[in-house]
Amino acid sequence: MMQLPQPYLLFLGDVTDEIDAKTAFGLRDWAPELCVGEFVLPQATVTTGLPRLMPAAAHQRGARALVIGIAPDGGDIAPAWIPALLSALEAGLDLVSGMHVRLEEIALLEDTARRCGRRLINVRQPSRSFPVATGRKRSGRRLLTVGTDCALGKKYTALSIARAFGLRDVAASFRATGQTGIMIAGAGIAMDCVVADFVAGAAEDLSPDAAHDHWDIVEGQGSLFHPAYAGVALGLLHGTQPDVIVMCHEAGRKCVHGLAGFALPSLEEAIALNLHHARLTNPAARCAGVSLNTAKLSAEDAYRLLAKRSADIGLPCADPMRGGLAFDDLVTACLQA
Amino acid sequence: MMQLPQPYLLFLGDVTDEIDAKTAFGLRDWAPELCVGEFVLPQATVTTGLPRLMPAAAHQRGARALVIGIAPDGGDIAPAWIPALLSALEAGLDLVSGMHVRLEEIALLEDTARRCGRRLINVRQPSRSFPVATGRKRSGRRLLTVGTDCALGKKYTALSIARAFGLRDVAASFRATGQTGIMIAGAGIAMDCVVADFVAGAAEDLSPDAAHDHWDIVEGQGSLFHPAYAGVALGLLHGTQPDVIVMCHEAGRKCVHGLAGFALPSLEEAIALNLHHARLTNPAARCAGVSLNTAKLSAEDAYRLLAKRSADIGLPCADPMRGGLAFDDLVTACLQA
Repeated sequence: MMQLPQPYLLFLGDVTDEIDAKTAFGLRDWAPELCVGEFVLPQATVTTGLPRLMPAAAHQRGARALVIGIAPDGGDIAPAWIPALLSALEAGLDLVSGMHVRLEEIALLEDTARRCGRRLINVRQPSRSFPVATGRKRSGRRLLTVGTDCALGKKYTALSIARAFGLRDVAASFRATGQTGIMIAGAGIAMDCVVADFVAGAAEDLSPDAAHDHWDIVEGQGSLFHPAYAGVALGLLHGTQPDVIVMCHEAGRKCVHGLAGFALPSLEEAIALNLHHARLTNPAARCAGVSLNTAKLSAEDAYRLLAKRSADIGLPCADPMRGGLAFDDLVTACLQA
Repeated sequence: MMQLPQPYLLFLGDVTDEIDAKTAFGLRDWAPELCVGEFVLPQATVTTGLPRLMPAAAHQRGARALVIGIAPDGGDIAPAWIPALLSALEAGLDLVSGMHVRLEEIALLEDTARRCGRRLINVRQPSRSFPVATGRKRSGRRLLTVGTDCALGKKYTALSIARAFGLRDVAASFRATGQTGIMIAGAGIAMDCVVADFVAGAAEDLSPDAAHDHWDIVEGQGSLFHPAYAGVALGLLHGTQPDVIVMCHEAGRKCVHGLAGFALPSLEEAIALNLHHARLTNPAARCAGVSLNTAKLSAEDAYRLLAKRSADIGLPCADPMRGGLAFDDLVTACLQA
């Protein structure tokens, strides 16, 4: 994995939906020391709260790359962003993108980058090919965060659990499978752009044989219940061979994000179907509990809901971003033999 | 969707094992009107029985492409084939390949094709990108062949059902998802090489809106029970939105092909899990019956087994390659409202 130029200026483009800016929020929350500020277009209504800086000012404060911190559905670079990206190159910043489209496919970016001596870095382009999965059981232990939907906390849950394991002196590695995770961790595989036949094989590569007491904490992708992304979720589940899954959900979310016609499953159904598939490659797979994103609730409502859900399903249920005893219980359940 | 130049001259190279020539046999059996002849090297011991023609003679009889009809282990283009491939280009034929390696990676082929104004067509390389699936319900009807495993008859089952629908004056299109199927149909999408995020979207593109009484008969890929290829199978299932699935299995196969540690599911379990997932994008999805590959059994044993399995699961169970009343029943069940 290449070493990304750092620190970053976070580009928010013309974003008006916080969910589309999850890369920027992820970097702000998990790698604040890498973020000198944000750069937004006038139409944007979302902010990270970081200082607003133009590229030249950011470069003066030490920034070395403009990170495209937004990821709209489909992963295209909007024409409206191009002048801003060009100004970043002119100001001496490399461009780091987690979009599906490669930066150099836009001739104006490639020409300007060459003229300015700057790099165009596509985090989402696998730098190598992957083998077909073998299903061979590997040494070491693995935890995978799965979800009822996309974009509801699988990455944050994995990062939180990896941090909590570290605090308990349990050897653990966060394994990134998406662009934001890779930017935070500095390594990983953008699972959703691996050629379909090799997704499970890439997941096997991502969490290789390890010491028997070492945990790989793998960031989940997609959802078995998403009409577009279920295949990625299933390949990652099979290839990871998780000993433990943690089911992630957002309180109050009823439908697949952006697809009102698709109702989300119950937590029980989501857990059962994920375990059913997980046991193909790891018959001992179990669910340690639920990570519930309660960001939209008051603290009082959140803790009441977490207690109720935990009682309903008979497993720890916590919001990692709120921590507390419930999260301690979830971490303990993950580590139980 | 790529559209191939036709008709074909089938290239058999220096093949000595019939199994390696399954692409050529598939074309001969399912698209004889597209095959003007075969072109073999002196070392070959396998024949399709089609007229033996040199490229120039084939071109005179109307051929417009030389199809590489062999797929040896490893999927490489042997150096011994190159002079033959060059002579086809010189004779005015395009080259069509389903190999993993791209034809233009061989400089001599690329140079000669450019000089002769001919095309190098890699069926396995998607010629364009695909959208993210939307899950939107499309008009027309769809049937998908699914399986307990890979390589046990999903393509032949789809072709047989499409042909049977035609004989009953039901409007139907075979939709190819693998290299041999694409050569037979002259069009299609090699699903296993689509980037993982777009598999379901590609499946949506493959079977677009159609007349309400038109059937797309979609060739399945992979299996939900395969540790490497389940993701492709699930994306294809969600994107196809099948009204009807037909479960394909090979009599006597106990384990995933090449992976002895992975037992295959029962037919009932395979049907139930496929329907569970199919109903995410088509709540009315149903299983019409089972296609059982009985090629390794005697006729008597085959018909006895088909009758037994049909009684066991309460659905028609037929071997399309044997036809007969059982297959008629299966086709009738596919068409039932």
